[in-house]
Amino acid sequence: MSDSVPVSLSALIRRRKPGYSLEAPFYTSSKIFERDLEIIFGRHWIYVGVEPDVPEPGDCMVVDIGRISVVVVRDDSMAIRAYHNVCRHRGARLVHEPKTTVGNLVCRYHQWTYGLDGNLMFAEHMGKGFDTSCHNLKPVHLRSLEGLLFICLADEPPSDFDGMAAALGPYIAPHDVRNTKVVKEVDLIEPGNWKLTMENNRECYHCGGNHPELTIPLFAYGFGYAPEEMDEVQREQAGRYACMVRDYSAAWEAMGLPSREIEHLDDRITGFRAQRLPIDGEGESQTMDTKVACRKLLGHLTNPKLGGLTVWTQPNSWHHFMSDHIVTFSVIPLSPEKTLLRTKWLVHKDAVEGVDYDLERLTEVWIATNAQDSELVGYTQEGVRSPAYEPGPYSPYTEMLVEKFCNWYLARLAAHLDDRHAV
Amino acid sequence: MSDSVPVSLSALIRRRKPGYSLEAPFYTSSKIFERDLEIIFGRHWIYVGVEPDVPEPGDCMVVDIGRISVVVVRDDSMAIRAYHNVCRHRGARLVHEPKTTVGNLVCRYHQWTYGLDGNLMFAEHMGKGFDTSCHNLKPVHLRSLEGLLFICLADEPPSDFDGMAAALGPYIAPHDVRNTKVVKEVDLIEPGNWKLTMENNRECYHCGGNHPELTIPLFAYGFGYAPEEMDEVQREQAGRYACMVRDYSAAWEAMGLPSREIEHLDDRITGFRAQRLPIDGEGESQTMDTKVACRKLLGHLTNPKLGGLTVWTQPNSWHHFMSDHIVTFSVIPLSPEKTLLRTKWLVHKDAVEGVDYDLERLTEVWIATNAQDSELVGYTQEGVRSPAYEPGPYSPYTEMLVEKFCNWYLARLAAHLDDRHAV
Amino acid sequence: MSDSVPVSLSALIRRRKPGYSLEAPFYTSSKIFERDLEIIFGRHWIYVGVEPDVPEPGDCMVVDIGRISVVVVRDDSMAIRAYHNVCRHRGARLVHEPKTTVGNLVCRYHQWTYGLDGNLMFAEHMGKGFDTSCHNLKPVHLRSLEGLLFICLADEPPSDFDGMAAALGPYIAPHDVRNTKVVKEVDLIEPGNWKLTMENNRECYHCGGNHPELTIPLFAYGFGYAPEEMDEVQREQAGRYACMVRDYSAAWEAMGLPSREIEHLDDRITGFRAQRLPIDGEGESQTMDTKVACRKLLGHLTNPKLGGLTVWTQPNSWHHFMSDHIVTFSVIPLSPEKTLLRTKWLVHKDAVEGVDYDLERLTEVWIATNAQDSELVGYTQEGVRSPAYEPGPYSPYTEMLVEKFCNWYLARLAAHLDDRHAV
Repeated sequence: MSDSVPVSLSALIRRRKPGYSLEAPFYTSSKIFERDLEIIFGRHWIYVGVEPDVPEPGDCMVVDIGRISVVVVRDDSMAIRAYHNVCRHRGARLVHEPKTTVGNLVCRYHQWTYGLDGNLMFAEHMGKGFDTSCHNLKPVHLRSLEGLLFICLADEPPSDFDGMAAALGPYIAPHDVRNTKVVKEVDLIEPGNWKLTMENNRECYHCGGNHPELTIPLFAYGFGYAPEEMDEVQREQAGRYACMVRDYSAAWEAMGLPSREIEHLDDRITGFRAQRLPIDGEGESQTMDTKVACRKLLGHLTNPKLGGLTVWTQPNSWHHFMSDHIVTFSVIPLSPEKTLLRTKWLVHKDAVEGVDYDLERLTEVWIATNAQDSELVGYTQEGVRSPAYEPGPYSPYTEMLVEKFCNWYLARLAAHLDDRHAV
Repeated sequence: MSDSVPVSLSALIRRRKPGYSLEAPFYTSSKIFERDLEIIFGRHWIYVGVEPDVPEPGDCMVVDIGRISVVVVRDDSMAIRAYHNVCRHRGARLVHEPKTTVGNLVCRYHQWTYGLDGNLMFAEHMGKGFDTSCHNLKPVHLRSLEGLLFICLADEPPSDFDGMAAALGPYIAPHDVRNTKVVKEVDLIEPGNWKLTMENNRECYHCGGNHPELTIPLFAYGFGYAPEEMDEVQREQAGRYACMVRDYSAAWEAMGLPSREIEHLDDRITGFRAQRLPIDGEGESQTMDTKVACRKLLGHLTNPKLGGLTVWTQPNSWHHFMSDHIVTFSVIPLSPEKTLLRTKWLVHKDAVEGVDYDLERLTEVWIATNAQDSELVGYTQEGVRSPAYEPGPYSPYTEMLVEKFCNWYLARLAAHLDDRHAV
Repeated sequence: MSDSVPVSLSALIRRRKPGYSLEAPFYTSSKIFERDLEIIFGRHWIYVGVEPDVPEPGDCMVVDIGRISVVVVRDDSMAIRAYHNVCRHRGARLVHEPKTTVGNLVCRYHQWTYGLDGNLMFAEHMGKGFDTSCHNLKPVHLRSLEGLLFICLADEPPSDFDGMAAALGPYIAPHDVRNTKVVKEVDLIEPGNWKLTMENNRECYHCGGNHPELTIPLFAYGFGYAPEEMDEVQREQAGRYACMVRDYSAAWEAMGLPSREIEHLDDRITGFRAQRLPIDGEGESQTMDTKVACRKLLGHLTNPKLGGLTVWTQPNSWHHFMSDHIVTFSVIPLSPEKTLLRTKWLVHKDAVEGVDYDLERLTEVWIATNAQDSELVGYTQEGVRSPAYEPGPYSPYTEMLVEKFCNWYLARLAAHLDDRHAV
């Protein structure tokens, strides 16, 4: 496949037609893919997992982003830290298992030994002149947003993480991520560019035709619609849905559960959005029967009917918080045409499998939905490769948040390209 | 493997030594491969299948050429049309199965719905300002030569298709392709550049040593020979073969079956060749016992002993028409070192399997021959990768049509490179 | 993965910090990989196998190095020759099996037939003007060092092969390679750059932590150590080891077995090193019980306790010669991140399996050790890909021969880059 980008990246960014999908090179060019890794994933806050991924001292989780490998580790003081997963001797990868527990971080090659604080404690045969303190592990910035872990690979991370945390924290806190456990984790490799995975997530225009399981708990009118295309009956139904959302929202907020939409997807460096919406049927959870999948509710929650709180962050995550469980998604680019979607299911840390929850019931909706989305991403990747592809129009009623994802993405690329030109 | 082309493509074309195989970059360079897709497969008439591939309204066949996907569809008026297989919304591939039957062409992603005429009939949620007529499928040029389907991906296809159709039509028409059915279709991925697949087809110098099945129906003297290398006996046999060809030819032409060689492989844009030659043994068909494989003959034919009509087109097809069945081959480049050979076997549409024909007997000669050729193509690809490879001489007696293929190919490249320079 | 080399290769060579591992592009860049093939493997003496690989006239062995394929063949006069494995007609690969026996070298495509002397004997249909003598196989330089076969792909091989042969010959000769047979051959594809495979071989700092089998016959003090890090007990043990080496060496030399280290790894074009060291335990062979694995000793040897003679050549080989068997290793780059390690086990040609030797006992130490090293090479490759990798310090006591490998490699690259600039 040709990798030629017909014009410069800056020109591609400038000439983008608002309201339309991106030009093909954004999905196929390996040169732009390298920029995505360098700028988008190299200089922004990237969601990588949850505190319960490393519950105890010495617990490690490895996260690979492009050519970079990071080890996230809980230290003896219970703080979580992140390091480049590279020995300072001859560069061997330090930790190989996706998750493991260690006393110290010992390189298998020549047994160079680092503490959980990243400091080189011991290296044999190096002689007198050798200064261990010059060979500590290289740290990576890490922040926790109420238990959601974000890393930033840049020396100077975007400074607006605190603003996001202040805004999203009250929404997430009642679901008490820190007192959950990860009961299922699935890595799915989608056959498309990472932006197609994100765009697919940013709209539900495709849900009706493709997600028979997910559309059980989700209300169709929540996906958006063009009012002028509706008949009398539909207009009345849509009106009733809007009232329901308003009433539920008010009730939840009265319980101390922030619910109203906050949306800063394309007007800040660390873009985000949150909204709590009612669930159809029994109204409890994103399950096949819309009832809770885990009898033990999260944190101090007692009411199962809390709808679904959706949290999105740019560039690479979304999360569904219900009263009984959380499903959390992180997107990692693998190549211009391959993307890792990592999904984790969390329940209360004291919930007992077989008693409080059944793993299949807990996971079946999103396992099915992810598989369907992966196919759609693949079909789109196949299509946009064609020279016959040209950007098409987004629906102003159902795809406006796809547009905001594209806006954010292009603005972030442009900001860093400008930086470089300035230098 | 290095992809460096030591000199410019124009220089490589200019310095080609007539009568010798091409320099290595033509078989290995991904840059030249891109040119082949763009110029050879992007601006010439490409053979892709037969009318019986889509016998009924709504029948679709997908053809992928490089990054381009085309859907060939029979519409309700029984006309055959071709479109780019890309939704005009967000670019998803429309039709995924190699062959299928549809009512309309509906995109799976968001259900945008196109008629068999390519027009966008329906797209939900797009609002008032949206003009469906600006979002029809993009058409692709398609022509049928007595049932053989050719597409051209260029805006302006070569204008000499009609000339080829006028010349080849009378040869092909008696075999009545439109009233056949495809009873077997095999996709073989050959481990070499597409031009090695074509060159392998353009000579039978290799047949004696490699094709024990195919050389049963084919006469060895039909492969060519150097007269000066023959002894007395061979010379006499060759003379008798020449007389037989002349006599059969005259007899078939008297029956209304054009048989004499017409050859325009390298003197026109849409190169072609046709010739009907006797078959050895029982003289009926390219089978292991040289008798017909299908009792029901094609069209209105009644005489099984019609030899084999071979039709070649540049750049990518060959076909064998016998009294009882047709074998038709299309070649599609997949990568510099991988090529799809798609073979289809056709019999009369009313022939009944198990009664009129046995599928194994029908297909065994060419299934074996294709596998043998694929190995030879692979060996050649492995060899020409070596810096030690240098172009070697073609036999002036058995490889002159390989030379014509190379001539045509280089001339077509050169013509379009010149175009571009002119612009 | 990005292939961009941030600075020129010359600059990378110049700025290399002595005593430190190489910068990442040397292990990851496909551009530098091409230079490695062209300069290091294209212009130096490359170890490819042993005379017993082709014991009889007509025996062939194929060796593939990058895009080049070479056939090594024993001719009727028992001389060993090497040719490019490419037919002079249309470039097909001539010999496909890794090892085979032929009468003549016949191309499968069109039966062009070459003698074992490489001369084209026969080509059909080429007509009167065709001169076979212009179409002989292209020869490749080949030399034998007491039965070890080296080829050089350059027109003008380095002239110092004789010097290496004169120095190493007396060490190797008593083991009589020519009268051995290859009883096991294993191809292992290591997941790393070929230089990581070589560097791994050039030190035993990693042996204690990774090679439980190999460290049975090898003495730990032979791996090197920093004297200032030792306690009283260790110092005494190290002293005793040094005396033992000195005494054994003297005894073996008295028997006519050169044993003292000769080392020219980075001060000549064809770098090499040899040393015979005692074996631990029973002192006989690199086996799990440190006793000979083959009852019939090599050549005219009668004493099983001859330690292990290690021979290294730059850029791509190492060999262990014991009294009873030889293990010989050749390293061939496959891609920037894949390397072939070809290991052969040799015993006396008259030894009988099941009587004189047991194949599992013979091979188990190095099969295990190779698998462990392959993992370490893979971990290092994964780590050096990271932008967080920076060259780390070699131990001056245990990794000085890794340093010499790097020195040799960089000097050889630089010499040929200069050549080119001069031209």
